[in-house]
Amino acid sequence: MSPGRLQALIDGVFAIAMTLLVLDLPHPGASQELAHDLEVHWDAYVAYLISFATLGIVWIEHHGMMGNLHETNRRFIERTLAFLLFVAVIPWPTSLAASFADEAASAELVAILYAAAMFMMAITLAWSWGYLHKHPDLVFEQARPQLAIAYRRRLLATAPYLAAIVVAVFSPLTSFVLDAAVVVYLALSRNEPAVGVDRASGNGE
Amino acid sequence: MSPGRLQALIDGVFAIAMTLLVLDLPHPGASQELAHDLEVHWDAYVAYLISFATLGIVWIEHHGMMGNLHETNRRFIERTLAFLLFVAVIPWPTSLAASFADEAASAELVAILYAAAMFMMAITLAWSWGYLHKHPDLVFEQARPQLAIAYRRRLLATAPYLAAIVVAVFSPLTSFVLDAAVVVYLALSRNEPAVGVDRASGNGE
Amino acid sequence: MSPGRLQALIDGVFAIAMTLLVLDLPHPGASQELAHDLEVHWDAYVAYLISFATLGIVWIEHHGMMGNLHETNRRFIERTLAFLLFVAVIPWPTSLAASFADEAASAELVAILYAAAMFMMAITLAWSWGYLHKHPDLVFEQARPQLAIAYRRRLLATAPYLAAIVVAVFSPLTSFVLDAAVVVYLALSRNEPAVGVDRASGNGE
Amino acid sequence: MSPGRLQALIDGVFAIAMTLLVLDLPHPGASQELAHDLEVHWDAYVAYLISFATLGIVWIEHHGMMGNLHETNRRFIERTLAFLLFVAVIPWPTSLAASFADEAASAELVAILYAAAMFMMAITLAWSWGYLHKHPDLVFEQARPQLAIAYRRRLLATAPYLAAIVVAVFSPLTSFVLDAAVVVYLALSRNEPAVGVDRASGNGE
Repeated sequence: MSPGRLQALIDGVFAIAMTLLVLDLPHPGASQELAHDLEVHWDAYVAYLISFATLGIVWIEHHGMMGNLHETNRRFIERTLAFLLFVAVIPWPTSLAASFADEAASAELVAILYAAAMFMMAITLAWSWGYLHKHPDLVFEQARPQLAIAYRRRLLATAPYLAAIVVAVFSPLTSFVLDAAVVVYLALSRNEPAVGVDRASGNGE
Repeated sequence: MSPGRLQALIDGVFAIAMTLLVLDLPHPGASQELAHDLEVHWDAYVAYLISFATLGIVWIEHHGMMGNLHETNRRFIERTLAFLLFVAVIPWPTSLAASFADEAASAELVAILYAAAMFMMAITLAWSWGYLHKHPDLVFEQARPQLAIAYRRRLLATAPYLAAIVVAVFSPLTSFVLDAAVVVYLALSRNEPAVGVDRASGNGE
Repeated sequence: MSPGRLQALIDGVFAIAMTLLVLDLPHPGASQELAHDLEVHWDAYVAYLISFATLGIVWIEHHGMMGNLHETNRRFIERTLAFLLFVAVIPWPTSLAASFADEAASAELVAILYAAAMFMMAITLAWSWGYLHKHPDLVFEQARPQLAIAYRRRLLATAPYLAAIVVAVFSPLTSFVLDAAVVVYLALSRNEPAVGVDRASGNGE
Repeated sequence: MSPGRLQALIDGVFAIAMTLLVLDLPHPGASQELAHDLEVHWDAYVAYLISFATLGIVWIEHHGMMGNLHETNRRFIERTLAFLLFVAVIPWPTSLAASFADEAASAELVAILYAAAMFMMAITLAWSWGYLHKHPDLVFEQARPQLAIAYRRRLLATAPYLAAIVVAVFSPLTSFVLDAAVVVYLALSRNEPAVGVDRASGNGE
């Protein structure tokens, strides 16, 4: 399968997950609650913002990876589907975080779920990189020397989420701050999407 | 109509169906129920996983079929729409399965519905293959000799779901295990997406 | 704007509207109601089927029209957006029809709404054809002679829905049967998607 | 990254946001309320219409901007993601406006939220133009002379929404009329989507 077709499914899942997040925003039932609701549930908006930004940045990163491919195979597509599973799941812990983050009884559990979903998305992305590292024949020749570095970098990028899971047991808030810090760091990074040969694959798009 | 445009609609329906599944994940109403809910409704997550994986694998298989086409016609598109109808429907029995699978009174009915939806998706896919088998002029010349085998293989692939419908009357759990076994088997299979000429169609994408 | 980009938005709206229909399928709240619900709300499934099939057929017809274009302009895109408005709206009367069609008090109103939405979708499609008829410069030269016929045919295709609106006042059921008859007739028709030059536009896709 | 791939994500988010709006249309719970609901909640339909039309027109405008690009970079994509955040958010204030616009207590707040969402969508679009203005190397050479004018025009286009926010404090209705006036004005405008070189980018699509 050419990478372009797989990318169409990926773009679709990302676009939908990013837009579905909005369904989690609070819809107060009665008029008098509206102002109160907006004030009390401000963390729903922060959760929405972090999730949206994370999905956006991960989309850029993933697209960078796809730009190195001149071909895909069934095993690689299956790894991509595992990654998409966790992309599609993000609206769910986001909605739980928005509803329960300010209730002491559940905050811990919710912070763990949220960080775990982020971690699974990051680790399945690293898994795809690992597959390319072992099967460089799927990758444009110019990009092959950088595969090992790219793989290690993606593995390392899962560490903050692992930390956020552990930290959540002690302080749910710190855990969320950690999740937010990752996306701010990635947004400010200067990495261009593709490791090296976006141009080459651009023809096929 | 060129196959590429039809594929865009197909990719869209798959991406949405796969992402909509997440809307079925339980959203407990009150904070204290959250941990309890996650524990009790673990089957919702298994149902979600099976449905997502099945949709993913079927997308690969369907894309493999499309890779053999150099043209489509109205009758073929209508068969594809029938297939998409059941792709789009999958989130519905998934959500029913997640809600009712552990209640003895409904488990049987829900297991039948779930397996029936999977069966309809598989049989409408086989129906498309059957059409290509009878109208090989839509298919690239190199792929024509394999059409008969591909059609028979897709027909055969509907059998486990037929069995899952029958088995559901006696044991709903066994029926779900059968549904899950199919997707595990397909995920481990070594078939590459296209029967033979993905390369040729790749240019048009 | 090249027709290909506009088609991407169109394909997206159709794919989503077709998949959103499934959200209208009844989700009974309690286990014991499930079997009863499936039996009583069988009309929800018929409404779903008619709407899905109509959207599918209209997508084919609309794609046939787009296949004749070598260019678009702002006025044409705005007509297409008006058409998409009613494509996106279809899940709403479908859900109302599914909920209220068997309650005498509302059946009439619901049948009118349903037929009216279908009519608006058909008339805005005809409106686009009318624009092409007046601005043949947007159309491939080989397709221009057939524009007048195509426009008239699309105008005529709105008549059954107009009839369905009127009939709904006397017999809601007959009105729904009329809506269903249209899609069955169109599904059986032998028209190929494009009026004439799909091949030519196929290159641009 | 080639502009075509980014456009695929953009088209996806727009298609979904435009179709999700329909989920906000009132679904009365009981049969006898239907006719009454349709009458009372007519403003839901107006809000839906304004939001749909605004998204459609903004999609045309945004596509016009993208038609000038021959390349993108990470910073530009991040600005586009900020823009998409507010595109995806539009169904939320629309739904609030539909529910609360006729209740005096909340009308003011809802009108502010609605105009603010529109403003944020407009200002993030202007932000993208500003980036292109500072980095003309991303833009086709023929389009560069018009960047300054285009940027200023987009900045100016945010003014009515700013006014709508202020006006909302005194008269929510006037604020909504202002929002509606913008989209009517833009719909009637004669601007063709691209500033100048849509043709050139059309090849790459």
